Amino acid sequence: MFQIQNSKSYGFSVLFLTSIIINVLLISKRYVGEGDLTWTKRAATEAEAVAAISCSGHGRAYLDGLILDGKQEPICECSDCYGGPDCSQLFPNCTVNANSGDPLFLEPFWVKHAGSSAFLVAGWHRMSYMYSDGSYISQELESHIRKVHAIVGNAITEGRYIAFGVGSTQLLNAAVRALSPRNASSPARVVASIPFYPVYEEQTNLFQSMDFKFEGDTSSWKNNSDVYTDMIEFVTSPNNPDGKLNQAVLEGENVKTIYDHAYYWPHFTPIPTPADGDIMLFSMSKFTGHAGSRFGWAVIKDEAIYQRMIRYSQLNTIGVCRDSQLRALKLLKVVLQQRNDIYEFGYATMMKRWERLSSVISMSERFSLQKIAPNYCNFFQKVRDPSPAYAWLKCEREEDKDCHAVLRAGKIDGREGNRFSAGDRYVRLSLLRRQDDFDLLIQKLNQLVSRKEDGSKSM
Amino acid sequence: MFQIQNSKSYGFSVLFLTSIIINVLLISKRYVGEGDLTWTKRAATEAEAVAAISCSGHGRAYLDGLILDGKQEPICECSDCYGGPDCSQLFPNCTVNANSGDPLFLEPFWVKHAGSSAFLVAGWHRMSYMYSDGSYISQELESHIRKVHAIVGNAITEGRYIAFGVGSTQLLNAAVRALSPRNASSPARVVASIPFYPVYEEQTNLFQSMDFKFEGDTSSWKNNSDVYTDMIEFVTSPNNPDGKLNQAVLEGENVKTIYDHAYYWPHFTPIPTPADGDIMLFSMSKFTGHAGSRFGWAVIKDEAIYQRMIRYSQLNTIGVCRDSQLRALKLLKVVLQQRNDIYEFGYATMMKRWERLSSVISMSERFSLQKIAPNYCNFFQKVRDPSPAYAWLKCEREEDKDCHAVLRAGKIDGREGNRFSAGDRYVRLSLLRRQDDFDLLIQKLNQLVSRKEDGSKSM
Repeated sequence: MFQIQNSKSYGFSVLFLTSIIINVLLISKRYVGEGDLTWTKRAATEAEAVAAISCSGHGRAYLDGLILDGKQEPICECSDCYGGPDCSQLFPNCTVNANSGDPLFLEPFWVKHAGSSAFLVAGWHRMSYMYSDGSYISQELESHIRKVHAIVGNAITEGRYIAFGVGSTQLLNAAVRALSPRNASSPARVVASIPFYPVYEEQTNLFQSMDFKFEGDTSSWKNNSDVYTDMIEFVTSPNNPDGKLNQAVLEGENVKTIYDHAYYWPHFTPIPTPADGDIMLFSMSKFTGHAGSRFGWAVIKDEAIYQRMIRYSQLNTIGVCRDSQLRALKLLKVVLQQRNDIYEFGYATMMKRWERLSSVISMSERFSLQKIAPNYCNFFQKVRDPSPAYAWLKCEREEDKDCHAVLRAGKIDGREGNRFSAGDRYVRLSLLRRQDDFDLLIQKLNQLVSRKEDGSKSM
Repeated sequence: MFQIQNSKSYGFSVLFLTSIIINVLLISKRYVGEGDLTWTKRAATEAEAVAAISCSGHGRAYLDGLILDGKQEPICECSDCYGGPDCSQLFPNCTVNANSGDPLFLEPFWVKHAGSSAFLVAGWHRMSYMYSDGSYISQELESHIRKVHAIVGNAITEGRYIAFGVGSTQLLNAAVRALSPRNASSPARVVASIPFYPVYEEQTNLFQSMDFKFEGDTSSWKNNSDVYTDMIEFVTSPNNPDGKLNQAVLEGENVKTIYDHAYYWPHFTPIPTPADGDIMLFSMSKFTGHAGSRFGWAVIKDEAIYQRMIRYSQLNTIGVCRDSQLRALKLLKVVLQQRNDIYEFGYATMMKRWERLSSVISMSERFSLQKIAPNYCNFFQKVRDPSPAYAWLKCEREEDKDCHAVLRAGKIDGREGNRFSAGDRYVRLSLLRRQDDFDLLIQKLNQLVSRKEDGSKSM
């Protein structure tokens, strides 16, 4: 009896001890391992709940998504050509979006690094206009930008000033404004080399300034002997739309150059040498893929020009949204921690896309693509294949004068060549969107190429 | 013996059961109550750690604050006139900042609502340029803005368009641009009533447009019979700097009016009636206190004007930072959930400050303040005392021609009256900054008033 009682008591003791150990483990995990979360729990739980909505892999739900029909959860926002409440439905006859340069090819990189790239802010976070140094610019962010350029080797920033903009978009006109003399006898001539990004012209025209005027293609001003009127040349390198590493065309004391380096990252081009222009524009949009955060920066040699650009940003918008600056900082920290990861991922993705596209187009004599040669990349320290952000497609047949319409008939929406001041025979196809968009683009191009080649044979 | 054994066993059973219950409670709290956080833990823990840095109640540490000397934690950013690593040191001879309109009086409201106002985003959150409807504007945010106006009763939004801006600052020129005819024989005349917010003039001049020109004080154009030139009148109500509920001065078919209602909230003024102007500008800055988020909006009657303002925002900055829109949405949700709390808090704070200031100034014949009468507020449904954002101080003594210098000698930095196109006898004192700033302002004013009154007696 005593024996039994004793063994029963022993069993109890073991169970009791186990239970105590479990308690200790649970308590330590809760109060040490998880850091005893209090006021942040609600926001963290909400973020995980929204992230857990899968949208069938063809869409996303967002914290600030629409909430319909009195439901608690935001709705799925589907990729183009996908629909249904969970984005599982593909609309096969839909026209694929290859128009806008939405850089969502980088989305999977950030899904992979969701934890390290996340941040949480409460309502009291940085409400002020100013940082503690009285500026509108986060010093911490500025120093991270310099680190990134030093590692990638795509721009010299030592001894240069850095100004921030609401996207590099805001900086385009800030630079034009800063470079234009006030009240000169004739306005500065703003030019760009065809084919060029249409916003240079549209934005310059929007402001209808007395001090500057858009004057079209750079080449028509190359041998112009008027040295009294200021010239402002936009040099886009790599070029949007054709990916070429453009160089300045104009020379002379009256010539100022704005280098738009939005695409000068290893994702899109080999980096032969660090850029060293007087004014160089960069943007998060095409670097980390955060187009919606509207964050860009300018690297500027001359202090007076820097001050004028800063003044523009102050009077136009009182600087750049501090929430966007916080986000950019968080993203750059991840980029720096992950060494070459974002560049390897970006290059591999874009290079594979270009290969697939080239292989489809090569089956057809109806279309051609811009020629881009492999080149040595100082960052990767090897020769790298082409990986451009856009295809600059040409319709080669005599009768295909309106190339955009030809593609449109094949259910592909590109951007018209005339938007870039090139002819209607050209169309820009965006290659840096979501994988869904790219896969559909290839599928539609395949159909177009095979169908039309058949058609031409039977004619 | 058996008895003892039995009671021992009973004791064990109770302990064991207790331990099991604790197990269950801990497990359920971890896996149900806290929702099993995974990838968000790091960001949540980081946010709580930074928020826990107290900075002695005279400063704040931020996620994106400077991190010095290889430390892990960001440094405290101290209130003006406070210093030291934890902001505990007051510099008594320091000049108090009553210059900028940094709306940090609302910070304690958001500290109180830290949990409900917090949000967490990962790197993949809304990277795109566009929302799912292809616009740059969050529909969800737009509908919350309409709800807020309906509840406060400060603006009619039914049947009106709403455009977003990078602060209402961007919308000032967007509106001027949209209202100016292109290529008219003479540029539109942009005017405002003295004393006026200097940015109207500075921003209009910055763009040096062929289509509009700043032409000074409204009153000098009142009886001008030229009906062929377009007039654009800025009407600021409540006015910055003097808090007056200004009305339009100009009339006629060639007159367009931009109503700047940044301060038309119950914090700063009784709301006699919902505003119903053709173009009305509002801003998060002076409503929730989030100046750094750069988010403003315009309520617009005419569709063509709305389209032109949207186009401006697109070409200038490709819309407003999506991170700022998310933040504004989150804040407005809290504002709506908390019923009248933010308005009660805002009014009580500003009203008490005005009382304290008035009482100090009333002790002196050297200075005077603008007169503001109590007025009936339709939102609170009672008569409310003055609670302006700024004091519009006048130096009354003959010899005090430079009022800013007089205050400066008393260690107070206000904003010069000539910045508002009024005389140097005026200074704007900001009343809506942190409590630290306001307390110091009162202290310095007390010293100035008593010292100078003594001085004048001894002369």
